[in-house]
Amino acid sequence: MIEAAYDTDNIFAKILRGEIPSHRVYEDEAVVAFMDVMPQGPGHTLVVPKAPSRNLLDADPLTFGPLFTVVQKVARAVKKAFDADGVTIIQFNEPASGQTVYHLHVHVIPRFDGIPLKPHSGEIEKPEVLAENARRIKAALALS
Amino acid sequence: MIEAAYDTDNIFAKILRGEIPSHRVYEDEAVVAFMDVMPQGPGHTLVVPKAPSRNLLDADPLTFGPLFTVVQKVARAVKKAFDADGVTIIQFNEPASGQTVYHLHVHVIPRFDGIPLKPHSGEIEKPEVLAENARRIKAALALS
Repeated sequence: MIEAAYDTDNIFAKILRGEIPSHRVYEDEAVVAFMDVMPQGPGHTLVVPKAPSRNLLDADPLTFGPLFTVVQKVARAVKKAFDADGVTIIQFNEPASGQTVYHLHVHVIPRFDGIPLKPHSGEIEKPEVLAENARRIKAALALS
Repeated sequence: MIEAAYDTDNIFAKILRGEIPSHRVYEDEAVVAFMDVMPQGPGHTLVVPKAPSRNLLDADPLTFGPLFTVVQKVARAVKKAFDADGVTIIQFNEPASGQTVYHLHVHVIPRFDGIPLKPHSGEIEKPEVLAENARRIKAALALS
């Protein structure tokens, strides 16, 4: 199988470089977290390592400790911020899995009793909603 | 919110202690991987840290580097073993998310173009199928 190369012009690379705006909730030296613009539920956040890789398959394993430490921080924060009952963590690898942006990212999705996960609608959420949700998550992170 | 405590008699704790059999594909000092007995597709594997926690929310962050290094090894191996087009990684936290066993575990599921992820059927796969799938994954891990 021919594996594709990392494309430095993917949309998350542009977000990491600040060329495209995002609703950021967290940043450290290795990891950034920002709101998914097509959320599968309120508070759906993406956690993204700064190091380039297409997905988990080709990532440097040294990425994973810092990355999932932030996934945990964000998971706790979205649970608190949205008074969620649970949190689903999903990470897609290659198109067959549902991956659409080819820079490693982890979905952190607050879940509520009796409410199934919404499929990706492809609809972009209103910026003011994303901004308000980001504010709530940042407030929860500040308390943790 | 009252968080439940870790139950040392959950089924994965019993598997880790060898009190219940499993189709293991990998083990090191910190992590074990074995076949999901109710697979959502051929090759569906679980990667489980030996350290006790209910899920990702209450885990020691030091768990994550070793855990996801093995998730990557297993993801690459199942992709090779089943000639899969992609791999989906899912980790559930609390019942609202779909968690049913309360010891942190990561689902590694091979994916194929055009075939949606099967829902959890609740049906237990035949042991001989799980044994053969485990053999294929172990062979792929040995080559990596």
